[in-house]
Amino acid sequence: MTITSTELQEKGSAAKEAATQLRRLSTEVKNRALRNIAEGLLAKEAAVLAANQEDCDAGKGAGLSDALLDRLLLNHERLAAMAADVLQVAQLPDPIGEVIDMRTLPNGLQVGRRRVPIGVIGAIYESRPNVTVDIASLCLKSGNACILRGGKEAVNSNRALAWLVQEAITAAGAPAHAVQLIEDTDRALVAQMLKMRDVIDLLIPRGGADLIRHVADNATMPVVTGGIGVCHTYIDASADVEMAVNVAYNAKCRRPTICNALDTLLVHQDVSAAFLPAIGRRWADAGVEMRCDDRALRTLNAAEIAGLRAVAAREDDFGKEFLALVAAVRVVDSSAEAIGHIERYGSGHSEAIVTRDYASAQRFLDDVDAAAVYVNASTQFTDGAQFGLGAEVGISTQKMHARGPMGLRELTSYKWIILGDGQTRP
Amino acid sequence: MTITSTELQEKGSAAKEAATQLRRLSTEVKNRALRNIAEGLLAKEAAVLAANQEDCDAGKGAGLSDALLDRLLLNHERLAAMAADVLQVAQLPDPIGEVIDMRTLPNGLQVGRRRVPIGVIGAIYESRPNVTVDIASLCLKSGNACILRGGKEAVNSNRALAWLVQEAITAAGAPAHAVQLIEDTDRALVAQMLKMRDVIDLLIPRGGADLIRHVADNATMPVVTGGIGVCHTYIDASADVEMAVNVAYNAKCRRPTICNALDTLLVHQDVSAAFLPAIGRRWADAGVEMRCDDRALRTLNAAEIAGLRAVAAREDDFGKEFLALVAAVRVVDSSAEAIGHIERYGSGHSEAIVTRDYASAQRFLDDVDAAAVYVNASTQFTDGAQFGLGAEVGISTQKMHARGPMGLRELTSYKWIILGDGQTRP
Repeated sequence: MTITSTELQEKGSAAKEAATQLRRLSTEVKNRALRNIAEGLLAKEAAVLAANQEDCDAGKGAGLSDALLDRLLLNHERLAAMAADVLQVAQLPDPIGEVIDMRTLPNGLQVGRRRVPIGVIGAIYESRPNVTVDIASLCLKSGNACILRGGKEAVNSNRALAWLVQEAITAAGAPAHAVQLIEDTDRALVAQMLKMRDVIDLLIPRGGADLIRHVADNATMPVVTGGIGVCHTYIDASADVEMAVNVAYNAKCRRPTICNALDTLLVHQDVSAAFLPAIGRRWADAGVEMRCDDRALRTLNAAEIAGLRAVAAREDDFGKEFLALVAAVRVVDSSAEAIGHIERYGSGHSEAIVTRDYASAQRFLDDVDAAAVYVNASTQFTDGAQFGLGAEVGISTQKMHARGPMGLRELTSYKWIILGDGQTRP
Repeated sequence: MTITSTELQEKGSAAKEAATQLRRLSTEVKNRALRNIAEGLLAKEAAVLAANQEDCDAGKGAGLSDALLDRLLLNHERLAAMAADVLQVAQLPDPIGEVIDMRTLPNGLQVGRRRVPIGVIGAIYESRPNVTVDIASLCLKSGNACILRGGKEAVNSNRALAWLVQEAITAAGAPAHAVQLIEDTDRALVAQMLKMRDVIDLLIPRGGADLIRHVADNATMPVVTGGIGVCHTYIDASADVEMAVNVAYNAKCRRPTICNALDTLLVHQDVSAAFLPAIGRRWADAGVEMRCDDRALRTLNAAEIAGLRAVAAREDDFGKEFLALVAAVRVVDSSAEAIGHIERYGSGHSEAIVTRDYASAQRFLDDVDAAAVYVNASTQFTDGAQFGLGAEVGISTQKMHARGPMGLRELTSYKWIILGDGQTRP
């Protein structure tokens, strides 16, 4: 289906109108809509999977990689997991209406901040169709309308899911235009969307680095960027070697393809002789390729590890997000050098130190400027559900508005409310 | 002094370097720097006033309006007031380092958010030289470096003030480049500043609507816009007429030239016969010109008020920020119509209802989408100090990051800190 620029404007106006209704919608209606979506995902499984099959067939025909095809694929288990996630959002407390810091001033004025929705959220994303349901349900619960623009590979899946969502929310008494999908995947429409500042209050790009950079560079409205994680784990001189191996192994291998996975391992020289062969063995078994600076490579090679895949690093291996079983490795002379390396090469996502030294831990927490800074834990914990937010719309690596995992509360703004009995200002 | 584009880049690099030091600076040093600034303002009065005299003379020569010349003028009282404001900032609690919502997860991880500075704040402003000191002191206390670009009318005053500030912070042991002024007022440098996304984390424009729009349209980094207030006061059918007159009078007349001043008065028809002549008399005495719709004009003219300045409104009087003793006046048939008018014409700054009706008050609070929504009080209270923030860097009318008066806390971001003892994610 092709839509014109005028139709996109109309979708925008409809979203704005829906947003004014959504901001007054009761928690009860919002939760009913969410439960309807969860039921719909189970009840309409056949139709959704048939639409997804079309996308997967087309993707195979177009020669998509196995990784992309896997992202695209829906099946019974994945739909059930999506439904469970939506029910979880229904169970989270409604952030809207909460009043923060209400106080009574000496003149009797009561002043506080009341949490309100942002308005209309735009989302531009790539192949994973579950993003359609994720963002729709988080926006709905937080009282925001959304305009979704998924990737062309998932167009049939997204259409089926959006249709199901719209039916579910209408049946619950929520405005039909609360969730709208742009089915046309013409690139010109993205360009237009980036200019719709009068309509879209916040734009969330989800996908690869190119997409995110394009949106950040060209959008005329606020954008929450993130999802690019060049993550370091620094093994301090005083680290417990067994703990360090477990943490580094988990940070790389639990899921190597997500943004909070370890990319570069920094190792203090004093612990390198003990630590590097130990992690080298674990990573060799897992098939991790290690791209090493000179000192790390010498230490690893000297350890004669079976199956070791250690090569010399190129300069651009530092600062690279691998999203694969690959890690850059560097030996440093001090924790200051490690922190300097992170400052230079990190993307401000998730950074960890493994140490037994109190001062080293405090200094790392103080000096590393990232969305999530860890002491003695795997960076793979950076996630809305793990941090207790219940769910997340993305992970911000910027400092304005929200940083790190963004849950329902991060999809809100506030307004000051002032209750008086005739006060005038002297 | 003319600076080149390279020099501006160097100022940017110096600011970034200063920011990394500022984020670790102790509260003690920051407060000492602030006290030094306050002392400097008093001790260097002669030099600052001499520089200001040059600006005022040049401004008179260039034919600046009396209002602009008044904004430009510094004198003993104004310097003393600036010094007092700086001391007040020194006394406010340091927002940096505060940890929000720290909790221990079932797996033993302690997860919380620690408040951190944003980094480098850019400010672009117009004729009032006190902004130089205001923004410098708020940024300093919140651990941010700043790059200031004042208006060309105030170039000598700003240079003297910035020099004094830099001397004060250096003497306290804070980094010299924490506060930097762009003395050159060449417009091309503003264009370059708007592109320095790698250096400037947040840009704050302060001044007229044209400046703010230009910055918002062209900046490549986040911008906090605000300061444009098209503010309404709605007199509900059930309003206490005496209270309504006092509130509306104060909202317009206390200081007509500031952004939270009343621009449009909306009056329910059921109270218009009692209220309009009463406010008409008060405003006539104060010299307020009333630009009225048909019904309001008829009622006012029928009241035969001495000195009344009531004329027919043009359509564009609604939605206009007057910044003068002028108000648009419209009679409405219902509070829904008033809310609809505000939705259409308001700028999302400060809006008030005067009412005795509980449901009307609640509905106004729910449905009006603005930074500050009042019941039975003057909109002139919208101000950081009045709201208990101590001081403000500006008033945001956007929804992302901060809304309404922005104090120290609104100049911060946060990072997640995660303290473990070897946790890995299953």
